[in-house]
This record gives sequence, C-alpha cells and structure tokens, in this order.
Amino acid sequence: MPQPSDDWHGLIGQPVDHIDTPAAVVDLDAMERNLQRMAAFAHRHGVRLRPHAKMHKSAELARQQMAAGAVGVCVQKASEAQALWAGGVHNIFISNQVLAAEKLERLRTLSDAMAAQDGQLALAVDSALGVHRLARAFADAPAALDVFVELDVGQGRCGVSDAATALALAQQVAAAPGLRFAGVQAYHGAAQHLRSSHERAAAVQQAVAFVVQTRAVLTQAQLPPPLVTGAGTGSFALEAASGVYGELQAGSYLFMDADYARNQVGTDEPQFEQALFIKAAVMSRGPKHAVCDAGHKSHAIDSGLPTVWGQALQCVACSDEHTTLRGAALPALGDTVWLVPGHCDPTVNLHDTLIGVRGGLVRGQVERLIAVDARGALR
Amino acid sequence: MPQPSDDWHGLIGQPVDHIDTPAAVVDLDAMERNLQRMAAFAHRHGVRLRPHAKMHKSAELARQQMAAGAVGVCVQKASEAQALWAGGVHNIFISNQVLAAEKLERLRTLSDAMAAQDGQLALAVDSALGVHRLARAFADAPAALDVFVELDVGQGRCGVSDAATALALAQQVAAAPGLRFAGVQAYHGAAQHLRSSHERAAAVQQAVAFVVQTRAVLTQAQLPPPLVTGAGTGSFALEAASGVYGELQAGSYLFMDADYARNQVGTDEPQFEQALFIKAAVMSRGPKHAVCDAGHKSHAIDSGLPTVWGQALQCVACSDEHTTLRGAALPALGDTVWLVPGHCDPTVNLHDTLIGVRGGLVRGQVERLIAVDARGALR
Repeated sequence: MPQPSDDWHGLIGQPVDHIDTPAAVVDLDAMERNLQRMAAFAHRHGVRLRPHAKMHKSAELARQQMAAGAVGVCVQKASEAQALWAGGVHNIFISNQVLAAEKLERLRTLSDAMAAQDGQLALAVDSALGVHRLARAFADAPAALDVFVELDVGQGRCGVSDAATALALAQQVAAAPGLRFAGVQAYHGAAQHLRSSHERAAAVQQAVAFVVQTRAVLTQAQLPPPLVTGAGTGSFALEAASGVYGELQAGSYLFMDADYARNQVGTDEPQFEQALFIKAAVMSRGPKHAVCDAGHKSHAIDSGLPTVWGQALQCVACSDEHTTLRGAALPALGDTVWLVPGHCDPTVNLHDTLIGVRGGLVRGQVERLIAVDARGALR
Repeated sequence: MPQPSDDWHGLIGQPVDHIDTPAAVVDLDAMERNLQRMAAFAHRHGVRLRPHAKMHKSAELARQQMAAGAVGVCVQKASEAQALWAGGVHNIFISNQVLAAEKLERLRTLSDAMAAQDGQLALAVDSALGVHRLARAFADAPAALDVFVELDVGQGRCGVSDAATALALAQQVAAAPGLRFAGVQAYHGAAQHLRSSHERAAAVQQAVAFVVQTRAVLTQAQLPPPLVTGAGTGSFALEAASGVYGELQAGSYLFMDADYARNQVGTDEPQFEQALFIKAAVMSRGPKHAVCDAGHKSHAIDSGLPTVWGQALQCVACSDEHTTLRGAALPALGDTVWLVPGHCDPTVNLHDTLIGVRGGLVRGQVERLIAVDARGALR
C-alpha cells in the first residue's frame, strides 16, 4: 500500500503556494460539500448510496463517505477491494466480473476475513462459467458471497442482454451453497456523458425498461432481485426517480472533472463543484504560448484535454510531461496554473498522494495528505 | 522507490501462463535485440547514444543500455533523475526546463552527490530567468552543471525560436561560475510520428537547418556548441545522417508501441520489434464482442487504442478497466489476449513492475522483475 511520499509531509500546515508542481490537489471544502450533497440526495430519495471507489481509490475517503451514510463502496478489481479492506473499509462490491482462479483465491481469503469482522463482499457475474467458478471457490465458505447478475443496459460492454439469461444465472447462483443472489447490477456507462438531460433521460428510460422486464421474469420464477444497483454521476437522479433502483453507485461527484462539467444538469439535481486540480507551473514561454510542467502522466486525457481553472486559457496540447496553453493573457514563467483534469478516475490513478487543501486554492493551506491506497491496483 | 510487488516474486521461473492479468510484460529477447541494434547503429554512425529513460523509468534498464555503449540517459524530471541515480545511473541529462527553487535545491544536492562519484548531471534551459535561477543555485557548486540551450526545432513547445536568443542564453550560461555551456538540445517531437520517411526527412531537414544556423552564430561568437543532442525513435537515422547531431536520445525503440509500428521505416534503418505487452484475459463475452480485463488504467491511449498481438482482433473501445474487442474469431472467456499499447512511455508509468519473460510469450518463462523506479516521478 503506497504511503504518502515523505517529500510531502513537511507541507502540512503550509500555504498552497508551497506545493511543488505538478501535484494532485483536492479542495477539501468543495469535496465535503459534494459529499454531503450526494448523501442528502440519496437520503431524500430513499435510496442507498454506494459510491464507486474506483475513482478515488482511497480508504480514507471511502470511510468518510460511509460516515455520511453510504452503505459501502464499489470497486472494479479484486486488488482494489484488498487495498480498501486493509484501510478499514468493510463493505465492498466489486461491480465487475472475476474469473481467474488466482483472483478468486484472493477473494475467498478476503471474503472470509471480512465476514469474520461483520463485513460483506459482493461481486457481479455475467456468465455461467463465472458462476461456476465462484460456486467452486466459495463452496465451503463460512459466509456467503453476495452475487449480482449484471445486465447490459446499453453500454454494450459486460452484462447479459436478455432476461432469460439473467434468470438462468440467478438460478445458478441461488443453487450454489456459498453464494447468495443479491440482485441485479445495471450500470449504463454510455449514458453518463450524453450532454443534455433529455438524452440521458431517454437512455436511462431504456435501461429501466430492461430492468423492470428482468425483475418481472425473476419474480415470476420466485427469485425477485433483493436490490437493483447502478447509476453514475451523470445519471443518478434518473435512476433514483425510477423507483426501480435501490442503490446508486456514482463516484465522480466527489471530485468532478472537465468532462462531467460539460453535462447540462437538470434543475432538480444537486450541483457538484470541481474539487480535484492539478497544480502546475509555467516552465517555458513563447510569444503566443505557455508550457506548464504537467502532462498526461499527471492527468488523464482519455476524455479530453484539461481545462484551466479561473483563467482565460485553453489547453491546446498535452504530451507526457507538458501541457501547452494559449490565451490572450498568458501567464509568466513560474506562474501557477490550476488544471481541471478531463477525467478524474484515471487521473487519480497516476498519483500516490492527493494533497488536501483547506480554505481554497488561493489563500488555503495544506490540511492533510490522502493516500491513494489502490493506485495501480489492476488485478 | 517502488519495489516489485511481493505478489509477483513467486513468478520467477514460472511459465508465462502463470502471470495474472492485467500485467505489463517485457519480451526480454526482443528487448535485448532492440537494445543491441540501436547500440550498433550509433556505433556505426559515430554518434553517442543517450536513450530517453522517461520511457522505461528503470535504473536496471538504463544500466543495461549503458553497458552496451550508451553514454548515459535522458530524463524529463528532477525526481526521475533522483530515482535513477539512486539506482546506480551516474550520467543523466534532464532534457527539460527546471525553474522552481525547491527543484533546483534538489538538483544541486543531486549534482554534488553525482560529481563526488565521477557522475555528471545536465539540464536544458530556454529562458534568461531559467539561466539566472540555475546560476544562483549552482554558484558555489563543487562541480559545474552541464547546461544545454534548447531550440524549438519544430514542435512549438519548449525551446528558443531564433539563433540570437540562443546565443544570449549561451553567453549567460558561459558567464556563470557554476554552469558549463554543454551545447544545444534540439529534439523534434512532432516529427516522430509523421508516417512516411519522406515527411519525417522534410521535418528533420528544417530542424537541422535551424541548428546549423544557430551553430554558426554561436561559433562566430566564440561559443561553438560542444554537442548537438536530440532525435527520437521515429527520426534518429535522419539526425545521425545529418552530420550535425552528435548524440541521439531515442527511447521508445527499446519497447516499441502500436503508434511507432505505424511508421514506415526506411531501408537503411534498423528494425525494432515489439517488446512491451499488456497481458490481459477475456472476462466477458457477447455474441459479437469480447471484453478483456485491461483498460486505460493499464495502457495509455493518448496515441490511440492498443492493437492485439498475433490475433485478428480489433480493440474498439477502452474504458478505465475494460477493453472491448471485435473480430471474426473471438476468444473465449478466460482466454489470454496480448495487447500492444498505443504509447509505451505513459503505459510503463502505470506500472510499478515490468515482468521480464525469456523464451517468448507462448512458451517462455518469467526471468526477472524490472522495477519501474521512477514511476509517478512527476516533479
């Protein structure tokens, strides 16, 4: 588990100015407002909140979310679950398929350890082979593994595409001694970044229709799904309003990013603030451009280049260690530039430590270092 | 400095089949052939080789390159230099600008330590402020810092754009007690991925013309540049043939990637083999697609999606933890897929450990673990 780099420790209590660049900086005030807004939303709508920790990969932040009412967290990988459990998170849903024997061995050990301390591990499945492997790995487990059957509700990635297959998998799970049929995983990834509320509503409506149909087939067969879980930061208000989803998995809302900032948000949805920034400094200047010292080894560009916070500057190119900026009023050599990453999840995964700042980016100071416990946890 | 994860240690001597997924795997035979081919090329053309270690970030591989004749390595960041020095690399050129006081303090400490063991640190500069800061930091240094004046030879990123400015900086360097004017840094990043030899030749010809002009101006002023350094894996044969460049900085040739594989290579250039792979496994199957367990947290997609090695499959989408594959003969659940990353440098930066395999990807076995010493070294 990576520990915050020693180099950063002297920063606690120091002004923001003292943070060397590039660095991943979290505005703790904004983050905590985001955290409370989503917790309040879930509470108000009577749905459970299980934030996706694939975004922050931090046990500390997961515990902070749970202290505010979240039932647990999601992750995508067995090794992420291991890292968060080691950091004190006791309720984890791997919202993804796991088939490899080596991984299932690790998960069995993890599940047993979690169960012994009143924790709970859960997993998604979308194939008969997957259930078969799980059933074998957990046949003699002291505590059952919660298993969700994943539906492909529109992304065209993982998940089964028809209710009959979902039923067959649910029956297979229900018949396995070490497994418990926990419900349906129904996340529509492709819906998250449709820009208008209208487009997202249409996409989620289709997802809900498939879930309703599947639920009817399962209920008919005496296997009503105990829970329907899914949703992301771009769509959670729609799933919450559906009356079908009992649990929301949004994760990005805590930090936000330039891509989610491009979504038009409905008036009945909470507004989230940008809380994750890359602090960068200008290291080279031309007459018409400036170059800062953070490139795509500092911030992921899979969802587009970063934007610049609080300055009329455009990022026009990113390479591994540089970002090129243009604008009418270019910053001078050495000036600070705050980049808003295009995509928060893979950006966080580039850093071992997030620097938590209290009091804003201008006059604030470093309050604490947040370890990215599951950074690089790919397996 | 990250150590290879304990999980991997049991793998040494095991067959490739036993490597859990996703994992960054290096075909050591292919890598060593690449290493020898480039070393032989440089030797044959009478130019120095200083491979860019921003690609592999590994002290072990840097030392292997130097054992085959490289004079040292390049890096982009002060913290990369620190990590490689800690791993026994004693000749390092930071081919980039450093302005921040905190970083210069670290570099002064590093330079002093290196000089005390017959090592040498070098740095690029492209501004008067940059030289001023360097001069102050190294004023009383026991050993001079080698300083290269960077020219913008076509990328439009860092570097000065005219010979007069280059001369002014060289004079400023030469006048500073702790600095030594070491020559000219002239890397044409944009030329590397022009697809035809013809386009690359035209781009490098322009770069060479600017270097020649600058060299004349410097020579006229009694400051002939001791060395012109630059070039990358897409263009090094052109710089070597120019008669102007004395040192080649190519880095990607050691591992290669899907982007460089798209370059048409001239008949007089050495051919490099793909040596870096992401081992992935199919975790979900639809009727017309397969999903493997490596996404862009495993392999960088800034230069395009990965290709699939040895199978007629196309990567059609990557998300954080998944890659979706299409093709006529789709692999089955659990099957291994070898991905060739779009871009090697930022891919390596996602991994703490590279798994070195001897004897090929099919029948080979794990020979050793290669620590990515400077993974995440951003500052």
